Amino acid sequence: METGPKPVRESVEFARIVAFTDGVFAIAITLLVLSLDVPSNLSGSALHHFLLDSWRQFFAYFLSFAVIGRFWIGHHRFFSTVDNFDRRLLVLNLAYLSFVVLVPFPTEVLGDYGSRSDAVALYALVVGTAALLAWIMLEYAVRRGHARAPAQAATGLVVGGPLIPALIFYVSVPVAFASPTVAQLLWIALLSDVFRRN
Amino acid sequence: METGPKPVRESVEFARIVAFTDGVFAIAITLLVLSLDVPSNLSGSALHHFLLDSWRQFFAYFLSFAVIGRFWIGHHRFFSTVDNFDRRLLVLNLAYLSFVVLVPFPTEVLGDYGSRSDAVALYALVVGTAALLAWIMLEYAVRRGHARAPAQAATGLVVGGPLIPALIFYVSVPVAFASPTVAQLLWIALLSDVFRRN
Amino acid sequence: METGPKPVRESVEFARIVAFTDGVFAIAITLLVLSLDVPSNLSGSALHHFLLDSWRQFFAYFLSFAVIGRFWIGHHRFFSTVDNFDRRLLVLNLAYLSFVVLVPFPTEVLGDYGSRSDAVALYALVVGTAALLAWIMLEYAVRRGHARAPAQAATGLVVGGPLIPALIFYVSVPVAFASPTVAQLLWIALLSDVFRRN
Amino acid sequence: METGPKPVRESVEFARIVAFTDGVFAIAITLLVLSLDVPSNLSGSALHHFLLDSWRQFFAYFLSFAVIGRFWIGHHRFFSTVDNFDRRLLVLNLAYLSFVVLVPFPTEVLGDYGSRSDAVALYALVVGTAALLAWIMLEYAVRRGHARAPAQAATGLVVGGPLIPALIFYVSVPVAFASPTVAQLLWIALLSDVFRRN
Repeated sequence: METGPKPVRESVEFARIVAFTDGVFAIAITLLVLSLDVPSNLSGSALHHFLLDSWRQFFAYFLSFAVIGRFWIGHHRFFSTVDNFDRRLLVLNLAYLSFVVLVPFPTEVLGDYGSRSDAVALYALVVGTAALLAWIMLEYAVRRGHARAPAQAATGLVVGGPLIPALIFYVSVPVAFASPTVAQLLWIALLSDVFRRN
Repeated sequence: METGPKPVRESVEFARIVAFTDGVFAIAITLLVLSLDVPSNLSGSALHHFLLDSWRQFFAYFLSFAVIGRFWIGHHRFFSTVDNFDRRLLVLNLAYLSFVVLVPFPTEVLGDYGSRSDAVALYALVVGTAALLAWIMLEYAVRRGHARAPAQAATGLVVGGPLIPALIFYVSVPVAFASPTVAQLLWIALLSDVFRRN
Repeated sequence: METGPKPVRESVEFARIVAFTDGVFAIAITLLVLSLDVPSNLSGSALHHFLLDSWRQFFAYFLSFAVIGRFWIGHHRFFSTVDNFDRRLLVLNLAYLSFVVLVPFPTEVLGDYGSRSDAVALYALVVGTAALLAWIMLEYAVRRGHARAPAQAATGLVVGGPLIPALIFYVSVPVAFASPTVAQLLWIALLSDVFRRN
Repeated sequence: METGPKPVRESVEFARIVAFTDGVFAIAITLLVLSLDVPSNLSGSALHHFLLDSWRQFFAYFLSFAVIGRFWIGHHRFFSTVDNFDRRLLVLNLAYLSFVVLVPFPTEVLGDYGSRSDAVALYALVVGTAALLAWIMLEYAVRRGHARAPAQAATGLVVGGPLIPALIFYVSVPVAFASPTVAQLLWIALLSDVFRRN
C-alpha cells in the first residue's frame, strides 16, 4: 500500500481529510442561519407581522438542518468503514461536498418563495444530486475495496442507502410543478422515516 | 458494546462527533459579528451618529457571545462525562445544536429592535428552547447510562443544570410584553450568576 | 532542533497549524455559497427568470469550489512532506491563505459580471497570486530543509508544481481584455488537466 | 490536580479548548472576505471604477488578516506553554475571543469610511482591547501557575508582550481624530516590526 496517494486510516493525512470534511459539514449547517433575513426599519406592527409571517423561513431552516445533519450522520458512518483514499475518492468527496455546501442557497429561496413550484423544484434538485453523489462515492469505495465490508455490515451501512433518498428527491421535482405542498410532504415523510430507522 | 452505532470514547467516530459539535459552536459564535450591519454611503456626521447609536447592537452581540460561550462550556463539561453514543443521543445533540445555531438570528433582531417586546420575546424563546433541549439531552444520557456518574460528580455537573436557565428564559417571554427592559435584566442577572458560580 | 519556534511533526503545535489551515480552507470553500444572492419580493415569472439567468453564478460557484478544492489537495500533499516549521514558513502560509480566503470575493464579481473583462481579470489575478504564493512557500520549505525529499517524491510532489497554474492565470489577465470567454476556457482546460493528472 | 475543572495538557478536554479557539480564529479571519461588498447592476464603466476605488477595502482586508494572523500566532505560542485550565482562564479566553471575533466589523467600517476619524478610532479601540485582554489572560495564567515558565522562555514569550501593541492601538485613538493617516501608519509600523521580530 502506498502511503502518499492512499492515506491509510491511522495517518495524519487521513485525519486531515476527515477534519476538512467535518469542517465543511459544520460550516454549511451553521450558515443556514444566514438564510433568515432581518429587514431593518420596520415599525412596531410591521415587525410583529414579519415575525408571524416568517414561519416559512423557519420551516426551510429546520428542514435543511435535518437534511445536512442526516447527510453528516451518513457520511460519518461511511467514513468509519473507509480504510484508505485514492485521488478519485478524494475528488468524489469534493464533488459531493460541493452540493452539500450549496444547500443554504435553495434553503433561502425556499424560505422566501416556499409556495412556488420553482423554489421547491430547485431545492429537490440540489438535495437529490447531493444524495446521488453520496451513493456514487459509496459504490466506488466499496467496489474498489477502499471500504471494509465487515465494518460496513456492523454499522448497518446498506449499499445503495442514499439511492432511495436521491430518487425520492428527484421524483419530487415534477411533483413540485403539480403541487409544491405534496412535494414537501414527500420530503418530510422521507426524513422522519430515515431518522426513525437508522 | 457495539462499535458502530455506539461510538466509544477512544474511537475516531467519537472524536468526529466532538469535533463536529465544537465546530458548530465555534462557527455560530463567530457568525454573531455578521449581526452588526455597516450602512454604506453615510455622511460624516451620519457615521458618527450611527456608531453612537449602535450600542444596542453591541449589547446584543456581547450578550449572545456570553450565551453561546456558556452553552459551549456546559456542553464541553457534559461531553467529558459521556462514554458512548447511540442514535438517539446523536439526534438530540443535533436538535440542540439547531437552536444554538439559530441564536445569531434573534441577536440581529434584538440589536435592531431591542426596545420592542416582540424582539425580546423571540430572543427568550430561542435561548430558552436551546437550554431546554440541553436539559433533555443530559437527562436522556444520564438515564440510559451514556454518561459516567463519577466523572459527572467530579466536574460538578448537576442533573437538571440547564433546566433553571430554560425556565428563566421562558418566564421572560411574558415579562417581555410587560417590560422588555426587565426581561433583559433578568437574563443579565442569570448569566452573571452562572459565570460566577460554575 | 528547537521545540518552540520549530514545531515538529508530532507536537500539538504542528497539529494546531495543520488544523488552523484546514479550518481556513473548509470555511473559504463553504463561504462560496454566499456569493449566490437571493433577491427578495420577486413575482412568479421574475423568480423563474432569475433562476434560469443564474447559471453564471452557479458556474462561478463550481469553478471556485474546484479551485479551492485543488489548492487544498495540493496543500494537504505539501504539508504531508513538511517536518517542521519556522516563523517565516508560518508567515508565508498566512500570506498564501490570505489569497485563498479572498477567492469568494472575485467569485461573486464573476458570478454577477461574468461577461466583463474586469471581472475575469480580477479573478485571474487573485487565483494566480494564490498559486504564486503556494509556489514560493513550497520552494522556501524545500530549500531550507523543512520538507522531506523522499516523502516529496513518494507523493508525486513536483517542485515548481504550482508555478504553471500561476503563470496560466497571470497570462489570462491580458487575455481577459481581448476575450473574457477565451480566458475562462483556459482555466477550465487547466483545471480538468490538473484533476486528471494528479 | 483535579481533572474536571482543570483540564490537563493531554486530556480530550484540553484538546477541545484548543480546537474551539483555533476554530474561532480560523472563522474570524475567513469572515474578513465578507467585508468586501459587491454592488449589483453596475454598468461597465461603473464596475471598472468600483474595482479601482476598492483599494481601501483591500487595504482593510489585508491589515485585518495580518492583525488576526498575528493574534493567532501569539495565542498559539501562549497555549503551547499552558499546562492546565481553570474556569477563570476559560472565561478570559472567551472574553479575548469576543474581541477577535469582532474585528471583521471595524474592518468593514474602515474599508467603507477609511478616511474618517470615527472609522479609524473604532478600529483602534477594538484591536487595542483585544490586545489588552490577551495581556490580562497571559498575566493571569503566568501568576496562577497555569503556564510553564521554561517553555515560556524557550518560545520567546515575553511577559507583557501584548501590552505594547495594546498601548500603541489605544494611543492611536486620539491620534485618529488629529490625523487618520498617521494613526494607520502607526499600526503598519507596529505590525511590520512585530512580524520581523517574533
